[in-house]
Amino acid sequence: MTGEPVLAGVAEEVRRVAVLGAGSWGTAFAKVLADAGRDVVLWARRAEVADTVRQRHANPDYLPGVRLPENLTATADAAVAVRGAQAVVLAVPSQTLRDNLAAWRNLLPASATLVSLAKGVELGTLKRMSEVVSEVAEVDQNRVAVVSGPNLAKEIAREQPTATVIACADHERAVALQHACSTGYFRPYTNTDVVGCELGGACKNVIALACGMAAGLGFGDNTMATLITRGLAEMARLGTALGADPMTFAGLAGMGDLVATCASPLSRNRSFGERLGRGESMHQAQQAAHGQVAEGVKSCTSIRELGRRHGVDMPITDGVHQVCHEGLSPQDVTARLLGRKPKAEWS
Amino acid sequence: MTGEPVLAGVAEEVRRVAVLGAGSWGTAFAKVLADAGRDVVLWARRAEVADTVRQRHANPDYLPGVRLPENLTATADAAVAVRGAQAVVLAVPSQTLRDNLAAWRNLLPASATLVSLAKGVELGTLKRMSEVVSEVAEVDQNRVAVVSGPNLAKEIAREQPTATVIACADHERAVALQHACSTGYFRPYTNTDVVGCELGGACKNVIALACGMAAGLGFGDNTMATLITRGLAEMARLGTALGADPMTFAGLAGMGDLVATCASPLSRNRSFGERLGRGESMHQAQQAAHGQVAEGVKSCTSIRELGRRHGVDMPITDGVHQVCHEGLSPQDVTARLLGRKPKAEWS
Repeated sequence: MTGEPVLAGVAEEVRRVAVLGAGSWGTAFAKVLADAGRDVVLWARRAEVADTVRQRHANPDYLPGVRLPENLTATADAAVAVRGAQAVVLAVPSQTLRDNLAAWRNLLPASATLVSLAKGVELGTLKRMSEVVSEVAEVDQNRVAVVSGPNLAKEIAREQPTATVIACADHERAVALQHACSTGYFRPYTNTDVVGCELGGACKNVIALACGMAAGLGFGDNTMATLITRGLAEMARLGTALGADPMTFAGLAGMGDLVATCASPLSRNRSFGERLGRGESMHQAQQAAHGQVAEGVKSCTSIRELGRRHGVDMPITDGVHQVCHEGLSPQDVTARLLGRKPKAEWS
Repeated sequence: MTGEPVLAGVAEEVRRVAVLGAGSWGTAFAKVLADAGRDVVLWARRAEVADTVRQRHANPDYLPGVRLPENLTATADAAVAVRGAQAVVLAVPSQTLRDNLAAWRNLLPASATLVSLAKGVELGTLKRMSEVVSEVAEVDQNRVAVVSGPNLAKEIAREQPTATVIACADHERAVALQHACSTGYFRPYTNTDVVGCELGGACKNVIALACGMAAGLGFGDNTMATLITRGLAEMARLGTALGADPMTFAGLAGMGDLVATCASPLSRNRSFGERLGRGESMHQAQQAAHGQVAEGVKSCTSIRELGRRHGVDMPITDGVHQVCHEGLSPQDVTARLLGRKPKAEWS
């Protein structure tokens, strides 16, 4: 629609980027892109957030104390945000992505790469976010990329060193995005395994709940490391059944994201699980979390369903589901996990 | 020497086990074997330690407050310990294993599995522990097994749930050992990749030093998770060059052990690195560690050498070596790691 040439097999340089969604991760990733020298427009649903970003170079609701770069501007008009962009970054919550994108569909530049920051499996359809993007925007999977890795937004906004994965079936597009967001504190690696990178991000919250439960039961670092490792093994089994490369789970979007989430005392899923492990009810844990249920409580249902459809054994996900939705205690589930039949490590 | 039949291809049941070495891990593993119903004899270098284990069912120097099982006995006579054992567990420090084993060589039952608990690469020869065992005891590699995983001894002694890997080129022997040490709190998996399991245990201390340095510089969970993940990637590259299966590094002896070591505030390597990250000198960090240098400070030299011999890029190990032995600051090394050429995640 902009008259720009579509270069088959060779990705355009990414000079201008729209980031749609001004939450903590959208804002932090927009900062990374701007620090890497791109022209970045951040779209915020609320005009006052856009004004504050544009005029005061800050987004205090989500990233208090962080100074945003001058070359990061903002608008509450999505049409203005995406105009002329070589890449459009979708930074809205996973369960609202479908509706948001439907509204933006006709605005998107014809050759732009669509980049998903959302993590999750859509309730009901059991689709990954890149599948939702491809379906709703009616674009080929080659034009959809995802960003996933050990990326706690508040740490990135403070420019603490981290690495991430840019995954896209079209390697050239991944490389163009990699170039667009490389800075002295943010190191992106490319990968063509979109399925694996997305599943890592979706499954990690369930394992973080299990790690929290173990901590609440008073267990230490061996138990946590065992849950992380065997949790990764079941993610990898699910991923392999869905066509992912098992090595992706040994990388930044798999174990990297999982370790950051499970180790962080700030992780909502971990804290929620810890309360359950200490013997609190779901209701009590929810009240302590300001009425919110942790993401893993919801997604353990859809991930378990995905595993069952593909005949994949997911004992930790099952255990989390049993505690969250079937009334078993964390103690019962622990005993059940350890009492299973002896096995080879990879089978 | 006991007249027991050597069953080719079919491993004997492991009924009686000798554990040679009564430090914290040797004692905790002996407890696991005894709790799994084996007859276990623990050998201690000092007669008073053996007496205390035998008479008071305790080893207070290494596992204070832990009650040892009745079917765990002890002796200071290695010939008595190994008599009639189907498995002999070697639980002495890695750099003394060669000399200890040379003294025990003629005592070993002819068909017993030799099980190494030692982690490390021998200084000078750059050999793994199972290679040292095979060479000194003059036995085939098929008779040598290793145990490796997220196994902080003090947590296992308190019966906190964990999993581990029993690796042996002879799968039947691994299964026999697995059966011999399965309990309600200790879940062993089998694997035939001895090289990968041993390298995981040897390399983890170097990465734990790097994680400590990052924490000392004030960095958070993204940075730690990135170092763990990319540290695992370089271990896996080294392992692959040495004939290991890359998947082993995604397992309990790879990431499991690595996560437990890097996350534990009690890890000596992590604490040592943290002091360096805060700007203390090697000398100051050593004084704070009661005069001891952390294991990773020594092993980064032999692991770097192993990498160089096999043409393997190990940037984190190099960085740790630069801080520990070449006078660079952790800040310089961080900037250098992040400033490298952009890459694909697996290449």
